[in-house]
Amino acid sequence: MSRRHDTISFLTDYGMADEFVGVVKAVICDIAPHATIIDLTHEIPPFDVKAGSLALARCISYVPEGIVLAVVDPGVGTDRRAIAVEVAQGAGVLIGPDNGLLAPAVAMAGGAERAFEITNPEYRLVAPGATFDGRDVFGPAAAHLCNGVPLEQLGPEVDPALLMPATIPLPRTEGDEVIAEVLWVDRFGNCQLNIGPDDLPADWPNVLSLRLPDPNQHGMTVIRSASRAEHFAGIGHGIGIVLDSSGMFAVSLDRRSAAADLSLGTGDQVVLIPSSGDDSIGEPVTTPVTFGR
Amino acid sequence: MSRRHDTISFLTDYGMADEFVGVVKAVICDIAPHATIIDLTHEIPPFDVKAGSLALARCISYVPEGIVLAVVDPGVGTDRRAIAVEVAQGAGVLIGPDNGLLAPAVAMAGGAERAFEITNPEYRLVAPGATFDGRDVFGPAAAHLCNGVPLEQLGPEVDPALLMPATIPLPRTEGDEVIAEVLWVDRFGNCQLNIGPDDLPADWPNVLSLRLPDPNQHGMTVIRSASRAEHFAGIGHGIGIVLDSSGMFAVSLDRRSAAADLSLGTGDQVVLIPSSGDDSIGEPVTTPVTFGR
Amino acid sequence: MSRRHDTISFLTDYGMADEFVGVVKAVICDIAPHATIIDLTHEIPPFDVKAGSLALARCISYVPEGIVLAVVDPGVGTDRRAIAVEVAQGAGVLIGPDNGLLAPAVAMAGGAERAFEITNPEYRLVAPGATFDGRDVFGPAAAHLCNGVPLEQLGPEVDPALLMPATIPLPRTEGDEVIAEVLWVDRFGNCQLNIGPDDLPADWPNVLSLRLPDPNQHGMTVIRSASRAEHFAGIGHGIGIVLDSSGMFAVSLDRRSAAADLSLGTGDQVVLIPSSGDDSIGEPVTTPVTFGR
Repeated sequence: MSRRHDTISFLTDYGMADEFVGVVKAVICDIAPHATIIDLTHEIPPFDVKAGSLALARCISYVPEGIVLAVVDPGVGTDRRAIAVEVAQGAGVLIGPDNGLLAPAVAMAGGAERAFEITNPEYRLVAPGATFDGRDVFGPAAAHLCNGVPLEQLGPEVDPALLMPATIPLPRTEGDEVIAEVLWVDRFGNCQLNIGPDDLPADWPNVLSLRLPDPNQHGMTVIRSASRAEHFAGIGHGIGIVLDSSGMFAVSLDRRSAAADLSLGTGDQVVLIPSSGDDSIGEPVTTPVTFGR
Repeated sequence: MSRRHDTISFLTDYGMADEFVGVVKAVICDIAPHATIIDLTHEIPPFDVKAGSLALARCISYVPEGIVLAVVDPGVGTDRRAIAVEVAQGAGVLIGPDNGLLAPAVAMAGGAERAFEITNPEYRLVAPGATFDGRDVFGPAAAHLCNGVPLEQLGPEVDPALLMPATIPLPRTEGDEVIAEVLWVDRFGNCQLNIGPDDLPADWPNVLSLRLPDPNQHGMTVIRSASRAEHFAGIGHGIGIVLDSSGMFAVSLDRRSAAADLSLGTGDQVVLIPSSGDDSIGEPVTTPVTFGR
Repeated sequence: MSRRHDTISFLTDYGMADEFVGVVKAVICDIAPHATIIDLTHEIPPFDVKAGSLALARCISYVPEGIVLAVVDPGVGTDRRAIAVEVAQGAGVLIGPDNGLLAPAVAMAGGAERAFEITNPEYRLVAPGATFDGRDVFGPAAAHLCNGVPLEQLGPEVDPALLMPATIPLPRTEGDEVIAEVLWVDRFGNCQLNIGPDDLPADWPNVLSLRLPDPNQHGMTVIRSASRAEHFAGIGHGIGIVLDSSGMFAVSLDRRSAAADLSLGTGDQVVLIPSSGDDSIGEPVTTPVTFGR
């Protein structure tokens, strides 16, 4: 036996409408009754490995030592690997499909130290169909690790360098423009961008211009004025650029949904431009400018 | 005192938007702090006893020993009975309204051994209204059983044969056609049918035809080609018939919702026909054929 | 060290679609692994402090001794206070923003005995942005209290009389009419009013008239007949007035949504009138009457 674990932090695209999450938790509780399961979220959009990988990366600094169980797995039942990845001198093990879902979180946790493919039938459930590896493969593996089963008993070791990487969109600078992308829209309509404080020049003003997709004309863009704010209530009636809880900038409104009002969605391009100073905050000027990329 | 229990597996139609589920859990935690509550699902469609009974049946083989607490209860407050049903030599007790909700799960757990009506006021909460038996009757009963209260103290014994049965739709064969029904549409849009491997003739080909409701003409049907697949990713661009995690066949698409694309819903009829071989997979032929039933 | 606590009852407007709730629970589990977290609900409408305060008040009589953690906090990051309010001789502590969210629950728990502003950096997380005090301020405070940290170590004491009160709409009587308001629409479409048994004259008949907003003409009202019923199934085909699980009257239908059928929403006015006796139950008479308020 190796070290035991007490917590399983759990993220999926299973949703709460069906019993998928509950059944995985029932299986885990049956094998490792001492384990505490922390539901990170189960409402990752169906099949959206990228959204799942970003959410897991946002969580990873906050989860307790132990197991991270993540399942967004459109390739379930194929020969894509089921993997367990050790990080932080064994303080943490991430379990899930080898499709890039775990990669950003593993990187943020300091990188993979060892990785194993989960193949040992002793630690899997026998199942009638091949469509629910959360219940039959990943959940049982997480539970057995909690019970002290050594990682190397799950199956053959895999070179961490051969695990599937994730593709995270990077911002870029063109002239004096910073070209960003919406990574995530949260329930409040805040639109997290893929840029943080280090991505904006230090001499930029507090009032910026944003070039956004035009909701009324496909392929066109509009310019909106936005001002940096410390918190949502400081935005006032205009558009705010707020440093969010992940340390990224978000396009936000005060007590309203920026995503709904600006018709912004995940993957949309947002170009930040140091403002000419002509735009007053709270009175956005809307101008069609150019074809979007 | 009789045997204590440590887990309560919990399923309702209460939804997560309100505090109903949380209040029941608070009441249980107050009475039996040692009990672990496993949320199976709380998003059974409101009042849908049949959907709840099917979900519970899909879960029952996976829940740990202990209590199963299930509440889909449009007759709350009437003289419908509140019951506790013992199964598996006392390893499990199912608690809920006597309206058929528990029946399929009880059957799958080997059948009712003893049943009791929950009437003892000592194990109920005094409540201002008669509309929330999950909080006032079922939850407290589950918690007291966890504490070792003997089942027979909950109220008078009931003949298990007199409990309300469930109505599960059975498939049937007409000529060389198998007439099935959609039991369940999951969040991914997979449409589980009420047939498993034993319901299809062994000599049927891998490519079948499906006769489905025509989404454009009420009462009409269309023929679509479908092929059996081991897993979702093996379906390709067409329609797949996949053996799902409950051991039933589901009508599925790869990374898309079959329910949305085919306009299929719970209760819809799906007729399986051994294919003529004329239809190519992925190029479904759509033909109005006959009046639906 | 002062008394330890074992449970945290948790309510927010964070929703379940994102990882907010999960991250707060991860932080709590990391600090106080022994604490049991009871999710009351996390689907309070975004920014809706009033709805959150009412839901918390409905729960408060049922939560176990310990900590109540409630976050509906549009002013996060501003100088609104983060507070911890002691009730019931220290058996309970409510934690949240000082914006009225906690006030009705505190009142129902017997009133605030002591209150403290949460300012001590020792019990807060260092965060990149100021937008997630559930994770950085409220959650850690709840967890440290569970570990026995004395309340007075969280920050300076605050006079409970200076805490932000809540505004709860009160019913009123005009002539023989009782003018009520919809406090809450639950998932089943029951419309809870702000009146209980003491608010209706004892000699009123079982059949009443309701003056409701006309869904078809803005500013107009309609009269519908409604009858008092013990439970939903006793309503029959008409409209019922049912004493609900909070001890308030609700406008309800049997197995259908009263909110949807009557186009009723939170905040709508409902006037109860002792019926003339002309209206038969189940055959509501619809008459435009007067301008609404």
